[in-house]
Amino acid sequence: MTLLDGRKVSNDIKNEIAAHVQQMKERGEKVPHLAAVLVGDDGASLTYVGSKVKACERVGFESTLIRLPNTTTESELLDKIRELNEDDAIDGFIVQLPLPKQIDEQKVLMAVDPRKDVDGFHPENFGKIALDMEGFIPATPFGILQLLERFQVETKGKHTLVIGRSHIVGRPMSILMSQKRKAGNSTVTIAHSHTENLAEFTKKADIIIAALGIPEFLTEAMVKEGVVVIDVGITRVPDASHPKGYVIKGDVDFENVSKKASFITPVPGGVGPMTIAMLLQNTLLARKQRMGH
Amino acid sequence: MTLLDGRKVSNDIKNEIAAHVQQMKERGEKVPHLAAVLVGDDGASLTYVGSKVKACERVGFESTLIRLPNTTTESELLDKIRELNEDDAIDGFIVQLPLPKQIDEQKVLMAVDPRKDVDGFHPENFGKIALDMEGFIPATPFGILQLLERFQVETKGKHTLVIGRSHIVGRPMSILMSQKRKAGNSTVTIAHSHTENLAEFTKKADIIIAALGIPEFLTEAMVKEGVVVIDVGITRVPDASHPKGYVIKGDVDFENVSKKASFITPVPGGVGPMTIAMLLQNTLLARKQRMGH
Repeated sequence: MTLLDGRKVSNDIKNEIAAHVQQMKERGEKVPHLAAVLVGDDGASLTYVGSKVKACERVGFESTLIRLPNTTTESELLDKIRELNEDDAIDGFIVQLPLPKQIDEQKVLMAVDPRKDVDGFHPENFGKIALDMEGFIPATPFGILQLLERFQVETKGKHTLVIGRSHIVGRPMSILMSQKRKAGNSTVTIAHSHTENLAEFTKKADIIIAALGIPEFLTEAMVKEGVVVIDVGITRVPDASHPKGYVIKGDVDFENVSKKASFITPVPGGVGPMTIAMLLQNTLLARKQRMGH
Repeated sequence: MTLLDGRKVSNDIKNEIAAHVQQMKERGEKVPHLAAVLVGDDGASLTYVGSKVKACERVGFESTLIRLPNTTTESELLDKIRELNEDDAIDGFIVQLPLPKQIDEQKVLMAVDPRKDVDGFHPENFGKIALDMEGFIPATPFGILQLLERFQVETKGKHTLVIGRSHIVGRPMSILMSQKRKAGNSTVTIAHSHTENLAEFTKKADIIIAALGIPEFLTEAMVKEGVVVIDVGITRVPDASHPKGYVIKGDVDFENVSKKASFITPVPGGVGPMTIAMLLQNTLLARKQRMGH
């Protein structure tokens, strides 16, 4: 069994990006500049955005954190987005979700210039990816592809089962893994809450991507020997014995499924750490596209 | 066995649209206006565009056919598209494919205003559909959904196999049938040229959508009793005994598969006739969106 170690791979990718940025500097080129918009003062959001800014510093990107009050109106936020769209210094930007309830998230995501949409949440980017054009792949699916590629997991002709049809994980993964690409050319099945006899699918699958958000849902009895397992779940499960009062659980019963798996992601330390690295990768791509290559 | 009769359903839809347009006229509203751009003088394209214009007349739409010479440059065509994007009288328009080789089709499709893209070929429309937003569904997938809905074929919880991953049929069908919608909520598998043991998938599938373009590929031995079969193939197979010198064959061995099927589309007369009806439906939708409802 090989552990798909997201901490290590994300670290490798960050080092590669840092080396690339160093070369850009030496050539006298502008380095990538990521802006992040945070509305309100939700603790978890602040932590996420903070790590994104810190990651920018580490690889040598410029970054700007724009904090707006919790009372920001939709039109104020849309004005800010227009400003960022037009700001030539900014290569890509993200609007941290969730947004306060007076703001329509869909309107906000639609307002981001697709060329600066490094989260890959605009439908134009989604469509470009699905239609085999160049675009920004959302961070989580992009991270999963990288894990599969860098550990040279064979996907071609394999049967991949994606459990969950969310817009940011299940749906894009089901498309990406069936496309002509590295970590692609799989026969892909997408399962969801209406799927009947899910265990019949899990037992036959060569690769399982679990993104349903139910702690330890996938058990040893549900998988075959040699299966590849990607666990996208992160649920806080109360645990009084733990100093924080909770533990993080994935969608997979790691302890037992790992006995049968050929490759498996741990939780935490699997898919999670990949996301920021892929956001940086998209920001670098945005800069390059703006430079015209 | 029930025949999924596309001629009848497409006729019903056209009648419904015609009645709707009649009401619009009575209310003094502008009726939908479809424009079609045809570059060059390919016989088949001329026939297709001709039937689209004729269908517009039949339901009471306005239509405009714009014919450009085979020597049209890419920038001339892009100018024409910009003109149509800005022309307030035009609700939707299509650029008939294929285009002469001096023109980049992707550039052309990207230039169409997504709000007027009634073919549903712009990535923004593709992304909107995939992300459960309102958008234009390409005519063939839209037609298949209509056939399934109007014959009340149960899709929820069923296992649907889509064979083929083309941008205009296989890929969108695999997404649509797994979404929360009428004729949706299926567990969907997408298979393609790299799929191993395809027959194992076809034998288990409750619904098969064959869009691979190989005449009579799907045989009786490959399907189970009660299967629902949608045949998207249309291949001209030489046949000296036929006055035209060829016959149209689908991807399904209709004569034998139909013995086991609960529902099946004939070829011709199944999916094919649906496409123009759905183009009209999209044009009506475009008009309504421009009216603000």
